[in-house]
Amino acid sequence: MEKNIAVIKGDGIGPEIVTESMKVLDKVAEKFGHKFNYTQLLMGGCSIDANGVPLTDETIAACKASDAVLMGSIGGDTTTSPWYKLPANLRPEAGLLGIRKALGLFANLRPCLLYPELAGACPLKTEISAKGFDMLIMRELTGGLYFGARKTEEVNGVMTATDTLTYSEDEIRRIAIKAFDVAMKRRKKVTSVDKANVLDSSRLWRKVVTEVAKDYPEVTLEHMLVDNSAMQLVKDPAQFDVMVTENMFGDILSDEASMITGSIGMLPSASMNETKFGLYEPSGGSAPDIAGQNKANPIATILSAAMMLRYSFDMVKEADAVENAVSKVLKDGFRTGDIMSEGMTKLSCSEMGDKIAENI
Amino acid sequence: MEKNIAVIKGDGIGPEIVTESMKVLDKVAEKFGHKFNYTQLLMGGCSIDANGVPLTDETIAACKASDAVLMGSIGGDTTTSPWYKLPANLRPEAGLLGIRKALGLFANLRPCLLYPELAGACPLKTEISAKGFDMLIMRELTGGLYFGARKTEEVNGVMTATDTLTYSEDEIRRIAIKAFDVAMKRRKKVTSVDKANVLDSSRLWRKVVTEVAKDYPEVTLEHMLVDNSAMQLVKDPAQFDVMVTENMFGDILSDEASMITGSIGMLPSASMNETKFGLYEPSGGSAPDIAGQNKANPIATILSAAMMLRYSFDMVKEADAVENAVSKVLKDGFRTGDIMSEGMTKLSCSEMGDKIAENI
Ligand SMILES: CC(C)[C@H](C(=O)O)[C@@H](O)C(=O)O
Ligand SMILES: CC(C)[C@H](C(=O)O)[C@@H](O)C(=O)O
Repeated sequence: MEKNIAVIKGDGIGPEIVTESMKVLDKVAEKFGHKFNYTQLLMGGCSIDANGVPLTDETIAACKASDAVLMGSIGGDTTTSPWYKLPANLRPEAGLLGIRKALGLFANLRPCLLYPELAGACPLKTEISAKGFDMLIMRELTGGLYFGARKTEEVNGVMTATDTLTYSEDEIRRIAIKAFDVAMKRRKKVTSVDKANVLDSSRLWRKVVTEVAKDYPEVTLEHMLVDNSAMQLVKDPAQFDVMVTENMFGDILSDEASMITGSIGMLPSASMNETKFGLYEPSGGSAPDIAGQNKANPIATILSAAMMLRYSFDMVKEADAVENAVSKVLKDGFRTGDIMSEGMTKLSCSEMGDKIAENI
Repeated sequence: MEKNIAVIKGDGIGPEIVTESMKVLDKVAEKFGHKFNYTQLLMGGCSIDANGVPLTDETIAACKASDAVLMGSIGGDTTTSPWYKLPANLRPEAGLLGIRKALGLFANLRPCLLYPELAGACPLKTEISAKGFDMLIMRELTGGLYFGARKTEEVNGVMTATDTLTYSEDEIRRIAIKAFDVAMKRRKKVTSVDKANVLDSSRLWRKVVTEVAKDYPEVTLEHMLVDNSAMQLVKDPAQFDVMVTENMFGDILSDEASMITGSIGMLPSASMNETKFGLYEPSGGSAPDIAGQNKANPIATILSAAMMLRYSFDMVKEADAVENAVSKVLKDGFRTGDIMSEGMTKLSCSEMGDKIAENI
């Protein structure tokens, strides 16, 4: 098969980690007889430097014309980088929010699991981590507070700022369906997170998710308040299979969940629209402090490429091959600095890419 | 001194744990020559049962007429209790939100610390918990999404729900001042949590907190995004002294922080207005599953009473006496079921109250 991939290397460690993913994808192409065409595009800080804006119409059009988007990371150090002197709508993050909306990427999938080989990095105590955990957070990505009307204005001489949290039943239904669909392929449990004891949007959320559940009699649905969810993730992460929630709650909880794995450098993510089209990126940030030093962990990005093969290209064997190669390399004791532990062999970013490619 | 205390025992384990706190307060009164007059009031589920509403004007008036409010917990099992068949504005939680607003309790103080004797209950691994941690979360309690306009309506045939997140600079300033004031009495560090890369309300938050910081040159101010904060709490809780944030973020992060102590049954809270008036309650919930069994841990409520002595009554020696009595009882190996471990002596709720009172 021939596939066109839009590649956004982005800022910080983005270029390094994406380069290693392309190395692995090229090996997959060679091995399985595919052809991947890459179109490199700017977004975020590098786009600000080149074009004065974090996201151009050309980048959006080129992404739309492709079969999937592979992304590194965007943004810089918020206290020192000149990008953060710009008005909010011209900063790197505005590019990220803009592309999510422009491509209709309403479903953000973040698998958070404890790799047995890396259990030592888990910040939780052994009684908890020994049970292992493997959950997928399904975050709504184009609604809620992130995309509601906002304004800052003087009200009776006092500066007042307002953001708006809106969800329609249609927006809730489509993400709920994605959550139940993916739960059917996993352990058939959905935990829907809301704050229904306070928010109208959460009450509508709970109602619609409950309706959607009727079409999935095999899936167990549970509702959990967001404050309790923040506790349960630490107390007993093994209880979760698929967690579905709105944009802001998903932002907070998915970061908490990725931290409890202890190896955020391992966690991929996919942001999908209604079709098979998606944008794939690592869960971690642009890590400007180690950028350009060939030290970053490329595995999250390589596993994001695997998700792309699986979800956008229906290349199941190929995705398995990448994931197995990653497992093999970990079992063989190879580590980047962030996941290094005693007795293991430390590799640079590019060496890790080589090792994984070799194992395809 | 003579003080009038409004007592809201509430639902679930509320009556048991408040009874033990009153036992301890009575011992304090005897020992230090004070007089505490209690006025028992209904709120939450018990008020619904008696009056049809979770909060009456009488309860509000009696609270206002008192020097402080001591509360247990309110609410029941949200899936089985008939209270949760009622419209949202008549449920137990509406009483809690109502009293916060009616009494102007805009500052919620939640100390989260790891008791050395209970470090074994901490869900984090020893490398992290061995450093210990002792932070105070200052949550804004009467603004933001909790109290903004909300509506659910049909828009072009589609049900749509909206909540509103509004903060004025005055609301931000007064909570920031509380945070810096308390930091001056602690380790002089404030971490202000927001989502300034997305929300207007967060950008105003950051601006005002930065302004307030100028009046506290000795205090170190740091800004942290809410998603990162959810990670840092798990990764390295020792880094935090005072964390100040808006209502919803505070709800989520304070629950996460209390869970990482591993002993939520130990954590008190205070909700204050601009004066010395406050409402004091344990951080945990009403635990309907163990209500009436004399099993609950009364320590969080007893420590809440100690906060009342300290913050509302300026009774420093008395507050110290209560806190020291709790430490002594823990050192002597006494535990309620929730914090029980091998080799310790298990006490019931009332026995724990007795033990602490004895040690005053
Ligand atoms: C950069 C920021 C706007 C973004 C978000 O909050 O969505 C990031 O934190 C993420 O989770 O992808
Ligand atoms: C019951 C609920 C409305 C309340 C809140 O979210 O404020 C509770 O969770 C709390 O934190 O006191």
